[in-house]
Amino acid sequence: MDPARSFAPVRAADIASFDHEADVLVVGFGCAGGAAAWEAARAGADVLVLERAGGPGGSAAMSGGELYLGGGTPVQRACGYDDSADNMFAFLRAALGPGSDEDKLRLFCDGSLELFEWYLEIGLTFNPSLYDGQSWMPPTQDGLMWLGENAHPYDEVARPVPRGHRPATESFGGWLLMEKLVAAVAAAGARHHTDTAASRLVLDGGRVVGVVARRYGEPVTYRARRAVILTTGGFVDNEEMLADHAPVLLGHGKVSAGLDDGSGIAMGLAIGAATRGMAVTQIAASFLPAMICRGMLVNALGRRFINEDVYPGLASAAAVRHQPRPYWVIVDEQGYDEIPERDRWNVRPAFADETLHGLEKDLGLPPGSLETAVATYNRHAEQGEDPYFHKNRRWLRPLRAPYAAIDPNRGFGGESPSGGVSGFTLGGLRTTTDGAVLDVSGVAIGGLYAAGRASSGIHGAGYISGTSLADGAFFGRRAGRAAVRH
Amino acid sequence: MDPARSFAPVRAADIASFDHEADVLVVGFGCAGGAAAWEAARAGADVLVLERAGGPGGSAAMSGGELYLGGGTPVQRACGYDDSADNMFAFLRAALGPGSDEDKLRLFCDGSLELFEWYLEIGLTFNPSLYDGQSWMPPTQDGLMWLGENAHPYDEVARPVPRGHRPATESFGGWLLMEKLVAAVAAAGARHHTDTAASRLVLDGGRVVGVVARRYGEPVTYRARRAVILTTGGFVDNEEMLADHAPVLLGHGKVSAGLDDGSGIAMGLAIGAATRGMAVTQIAASFLPAMICRGMLVNALGRRFINEDVYPGLASAAAVRHQPRPYWVIVDEQGYDEIPERDRWNVRPAFADETLHGLEKDLGLPPGSLETAVATYNRHAEQGEDPYFHKNRRWLRPLRAPYAAIDPNRGFGGESPSGGVSGFTLGGLRTTTDGAVLDVSGVAIGGLYAAGRASSGIHGAGYISGTSLADGAFFGRRAGRAAVRH
Repeated sequence: MDPARSFAPVRAADIASFDHEADVLVVGFGCAGGAAAWEAARAGADVLVLERAGGPGGSAAMSGGELYLGGGTPVQRACGYDDSADNMFAFLRAALGPGSDEDKLRLFCDGSLELFEWYLEIGLTFNPSLYDGQSWMPPTQDGLMWLGENAHPYDEVARPVPRGHRPATESFGGWLLMEKLVAAVAAAGARHHTDTAASRLVLDGGRVVGVVARRYGEPVTYRARRAVILTTGGFVDNEEMLADHAPVLLGHGKVSAGLDDGSGIAMGLAIGAATRGMAVTQIAASFLPAMICRGMLVNALGRRFINEDVYPGLASAAAVRHQPRPYWVIVDEQGYDEIPERDRWNVRPAFADETLHGLEKDLGLPPGSLETAVATYNRHAEQGEDPYFHKNRRWLRPLRAPYAAIDPNRGFGGESPSGGVSGFTLGGLRTTTDGAVLDVSGVAIGGLYAAGRASSGIHGAGYISGTSLADGAFFGRRAGRAAVRH
Repeated sequence: MDPARSFAPVRAADIASFDHEADVLVVGFGCAGGAAAWEAARAGADVLVLERAGGPGGSAAMSGGELYLGGGTPVQRACGYDDSADNMFAFLRAALGPGSDEDKLRLFCDGSLELFEWYLEIGLTFNPSLYDGQSWMPPTQDGLMWLGENAHPYDEVARPVPRGHRPATESFGGWLLMEKLVAAVAAAGARHHTDTAASRLVLDGGRVVGVVARRYGEPVTYRARRAVILTTGGFVDNEEMLADHAPVLLGHGKVSAGLDDGSGIAMGLAIGAATRGMAVTQIAASFLPAMICRGMLVNALGRRFINEDVYPGLASAAAVRHQPRPYWVIVDEQGYDEIPERDRWNVRPAFADETLHGLEKDLGLPPGSLETAVATYNRHAEQGEDPYFHKNRRWLRPLRAPYAAIDPNRGFGGESPSGGVSGFTLGGLRTTTDGAVLDVSGVAIGGLYAAGRASSGIHGAGYISGTSLADGAFFGRRAGRAAVRH
């Protein structure tokens, strides 16, 4: 074992003098670490953030920047939508379940309006307009988008309102979110050290009083007068941890900045911390939502398996997790023509045929499977019904020859057929709603907090865009405040 | 926190004098603990086994007692089957995957003949005859049974040979296995203490040198001169650990003796041990295999989802994990009449109808779904083919009116419709192939071993009857030998 890679704790008594100290040490400068540092600094603490990379940002800076917010934000109201914390909770409980953390989720929903205000405070703006299409990433600067709230079964468990909030920028907004947050953290008076990879906690008795990091290969010691907050992200970039805890992600793309190495989780585990949901993942293929909703999404047996108008993260997760691949979208000429050009991402049909029998052969599907599937779909669509999967009737229409098959995953450069799967981890250290890290006996470890994907947050088995960024900021802020009170 | 429920380690310096001591302490007297104790005692060590219950046996004693063995055992040869370690490995790698531990699996297959001999040595006998039907638990004393080796896709990845070995007894054989093992352990000279629940490891520096247990509410201290071996079973009886790591089992029946509380895993975690596959579970509904193979197994959408002749644990796991319930077996009169009386478990059809249209209504399936599914099945069955799921042609026959629907899970008292789901956990402490427990930095923790379901064994996402008992004994024996060498 390379000692530089050990996560074993160090005794405070074995450190003659610390190289640096602060009231609160934050390990990792992504969205959770930034939020924690901001709160702790604003509460008057001397805060130092350690970041392994050459600059702050983390995986949040690489993300789309959607923020899952609701409860009646000014943006929702400007777009004509009434929302409430209860309504938001009902949706997320279903969409992030089963197994979502209801205590955390309740707080998250009750505090969503205040979180929206905080994003304004750190300098983000949101345009008061809705993108009313099916999209991962609207090609506009609209500040609001749907994230599956209006699709079955979610439209029945809660009143459908859009909650995907987008900072005003073109395309991916994660960089903007982090640019504003980093500036706000500096303005609040927190310092940060980059190129500094923490890997061991310092213990005094059972209490965490610092960390040992490495900078350019040399050990550097940091004392925390009050607390250490671990915000190092998940472990999608650590192949060994993936194999042990979330093997479904092995061999797939990583939604990260390449540094989600699980080090914060390992540092906690090394001193007896508990974890939760280490197998829980976001995993998706980048199915083009404006295409799949206009056709019939089938698996390698020529069978539908979900309502095509659901949040594309759920459709593609259902495919990747449980369906034989490749997957295909079967469309007819009218359906293809109706796809807005900007939502096509230059994807063209892989096969086209006058008959389903011919298309079935082209795709290598079981004989008769596609004919049967389309006949069933059409019979019900004529009545405006989808008794199998309850696709919304605005997308239901019988398919007519000629037909085409599209690889649903071509849009973002996914490899054919239906490759291009990617994801990240959602499990981590088990924390209280204030971010205190619990040990395996259920007792809070003195001086240790965690937030963001180094911890287990609101998520059960499900995931919706913007919930990880927002949960990271929300519980990062709570951890920052609690660490100062500590 | 009730201090009696703490898993926090105790420093050896804080224990004035130990109440008991031994060379090797084994914690938990099930199949893995018994095997470890037997080996350690036979190697000359003074061995003491601590058991939380009033007597030895653990979950193994409540089990069916099937042992997954192969590579050419005398029983396989007597039944006319050639097998090899490679052939066994090829099957198990597929059936226990993805994510099986190939190093452990390789050793397990290479050592299977020797493990068979060991079972003879401790006093088990196996009748040299095959039960050639589809069954969870043959109603005979045949010593060999199929466990899905002859069904698609497994019949293609390895030469199909049966490997389910059954000790000579009526029905469930776990009690007999443990009766013989307990006697063998005593004959080998190992002692045991019952009603003794270990909950904390004793550390001297970083090394494990004992345990603190509770007996009738009072703490009792045990010193281990060489090593502690944790064989406490899984955590299916610990609701909090299930919620954190394997929520799929929440609310379902527990395949255990009620004491799989995860205590050994928690004791290891409390000192920084690593885990592997904590989300991996066996979960099944007790589908009657002789029924499902003679009909068509469908989900709540009236769709088939697997070849009905596969190992029933795989069929029911596929249903429970991924299919909307209830599930039904659709049979015709000929199929029902062909089910051997002894394999019917007194289960009668829930509904019968002259038409599929009528049956579909009785079952509340989407209109047309069953007619379509049977038409497709029949069209292919007439050609002896099943292009969807590759059911073996010996079970393929078009279904003819009148039809009946059977709740596939009625046999073992499962609640209708399709309730009666149960399971257990397969993840646990991360160990070397000799059972040494690894910490989160990948370094073996001095003096600490684990085996059986307190550890992660050969399993990836899959499970086959008899693999957990056999892996428990196999790696328990290795841990027992290694602990003495320690």
